[in-house]
Amino acid sequence: MDPLSGDAPRFEVGRSSGAARSGRLCTRRGTIDTPAFLPVGTHGAVRGLSVADLRAAGVQGILANTYHLHLRPGEEIVARLGGLHRFMGWSGPMLTDSGGFQVHSLSEFARHAESGVEFRSPLDGAKHFLSPESSIEIQQNLGADLIAALDVFEPITGDADEPRRALEALERTLRWAERCREAHTRRDQLLFGVLQGGGRPEQRRWSAGRSVALGFEAFAVGGLGLGESRDLRAELVEASLAELPPPAPRYLMGLGRPDDLVEAVARGIDLFDCVVPTRHGRHGQAFSDDGPFNLHNARFREDDRPLDPESGEPVSGATSRAYLHHLLRSGEVLGQRLLSQHNLAYYMRLMVRMRTAIEGDRFEDWSRGWLKRYRASD
Amino acid sequence: MDPLSGDAPRFEVGRSSGAARSGRLCTRRGTIDTPAFLPVGTHGAVRGLSVADLRAAGVQGILANTYHLHLRPGEEIVARLGGLHRFMGWSGPMLTDSGGFQVHSLSEFARHAESGVEFRSPLDGAKHFLSPESSIEIQQNLGADLIAALDVFEPITGDADEPRRALEALERTLRWAERCREAHTRRDQLLFGVLQGGGRPEQRRWSAGRSVALGFEAFAVGGLGLGESRDLRAELVEASLAELPPPAPRYLMGLGRPDDLVEAVARGIDLFDCVVPTRHGRHGQAFSDDGPFNLHNARFREDDRPLDPESGEPVSGATSRAYLHHLLRSGEVLGQRLLSQHNLAYYMRLMVRMRTAIEGDRFEDWSRGWLKRYRASD
Repeated sequence: MDPLSGDAPRFEVGRSSGAARSGRLCTRRGTIDTPAFLPVGTHGAVRGLSVADLRAAGVQGILANTYHLHLRPGEEIVARLGGLHRFMGWSGPMLTDSGGFQVHSLSEFARHAESGVEFRSPLDGAKHFLSPESSIEIQQNLGADLIAALDVFEPITGDADEPRRALEALERTLRWAERCREAHTRRDQLLFGVLQGGGRPEQRRWSAGRSVALGFEAFAVGGLGLGESRDLRAELVEASLAELPPPAPRYLMGLGRPDDLVEAVARGIDLFDCVVPTRHGRHGQAFSDDGPFNLHNARFREDDRPLDPESGEPVSGATSRAYLHHLLRSGEVLGQRLLSQHNLAYYMRLMVRMRTAIEGDRFEDWSRGWLKRYRASD
Repeated sequence: MDPLSGDAPRFEVGRSSGAARSGRLCTRRGTIDTPAFLPVGTHGAVRGLSVADLRAAGVQGILANTYHLHLRPGEEIVARLGGLHRFMGWSGPMLTDSGGFQVHSLSEFARHAESGVEFRSPLDGAKHFLSPESSIEIQQNLGADLIAALDVFEPITGDADEPRRALEALERTLRWAERCREAHTRRDQLLFGVLQGGGRPEQRRWSAGRSVALGFEAFAVGGLGLGESRDLRAELVEASLAELPPPAPRYLMGLGRPDDLVEAVARGIDLFDCVVPTRHGRHGQAFSDDGPFNLHNARFREDDRPLDPESGEPVSGATSRAYLHHLLRSGEVLGQRLLSQHNLAYYMRLMVRMRTAIEGDRFEDWSRGWLKRYRASD
């Protein structure tokens, strides 16, 4: 298929329940039922898990990191090898981020200018330049179905000067958004505009309105999940979404824990990505309806129960908590893998449960009950 | 089933081709077709691989390490949790070693006496005592189908005093073998007598003859694969096997590389265990009919070919060498896992090919051709 004339991804809103909504994000590589969670394949692999594991957990789409793949193996090699889907053996929908957040968080020597960001590779010290145009070019070479505009990120610090800095970041984000739209030529890729605005609801609303005016058909909320309070986040998400046209998909970048997902779906978010299920799994943590628990804990030494008696999925029922405790204590990577797989399956089932509650128009009831039980152990 | 009256494992010799032979080792948990290779599940898990992965690779039986499981979680916990099969979710045949080799190779403070070996746990410094009786007791608690007598190991050094030391070790091994037989009460477990004898064929022959006289019905050749030359090893294996009754299964402990297996099968070995396929996989090495190659090598950076175009198994064909190279370079454990899985599947197919060649009475021809191609890259 010619990517320039290829089928553009499209979003169909389904049912609503309060502000929560179900939908379908259709790409030429398959459909993602929303609300949806995409696990993160940082280097072109969801850590420790095979493509078959992802399918078994119910994963419909994944995210890969532009920054990491640009540095190694490089998007040109990936393109010569047939694109990222073929390279990693994942045939379903895929999203790439812009690379901007990783430049911010991982590169010590980033120099920001209106033209773009210069940074050094932590791998070999080589200089790289990430601009709106190069971010789009890299993402076009990687070949994901859903891609993101390069934004400028300003942490929510709460100091007096923050609104000014957040406004500057937001304005540059908007100028870069225009340049990204200019540079973007692959019609088979849906480009998400990224909303910023720091910790002020009015700036969030303004960012959304201006992004809509630029002509984006999909929107990502950026800069959250980095330490702000639950209440502030809810307010900022609501402000961001208030200006968006309902037919456009809404993606909350980089979040989160299961309860973060439930609270954001309640406000109208359709799409998530996060490392939490796999990263926490590697650290021994298992998610459950009763909250997370850590299998390193000595109380699991002789706990013969399966990980999650209610789940019905093979990983959670195959062996005991005592065995997982033993694997973690012994440094056996299989323990990390089984917990990552369990957590991912837990997340995917949680999304299905949310969809079902939305489609039965009982999301508020369902989420109140779920959150109460999940947080009872806090 | 009451283990004291349970079905004892039995061995059936099948066809012969020269000294090579096929057979079936039948246990109440399933059958192992021989010649067979058992991957090593050190801490109750074959490193990085799930039980489903083992099944997919064609594994029929596994080995678990008595030493490691005694130290953590402890055989009593394993027994309370229903035995090692249930603990790790492996329902097929299982073999445990005696623990003696690991005490020798991993414990710095081992004190040997006629009664047994005192050693300190590297985990917490606690004192432990491994005797013929305690080794059998631990193995009875773990509950494997095939178990091993505690032996005394003397390295082949080639110095003038070695034959005397080897003879002493061998004589103690024989006295301990008697004590192991005394201590062993579970009829559903087949106890392997361990043959020693160092680097002297006549001592190897004597060890075998005396072990037969003690009444063992299964035999393991110990103390090899530790640096001796290929020719010496062949001679020692032949000497060890010469005295054994043909109906008894013959197990070469701790070996080896694919060509080691082919050469030992040619001399009549039925059973192997080794960490090589998984350990080398973790280090980036893939086995193939053209010898091993290391995916870390820069020449694989843009190599779009599957790992082993001839294999027909999913892991080897799913992604390119370039992708595996990228995963290894990026430190993604998925690369180590996929290579471990590939290598294990390669080993299992190699065993099937040997069985087929034996059953067609063309093992010598087949092995000559295979060894020539495998070693052409040496």
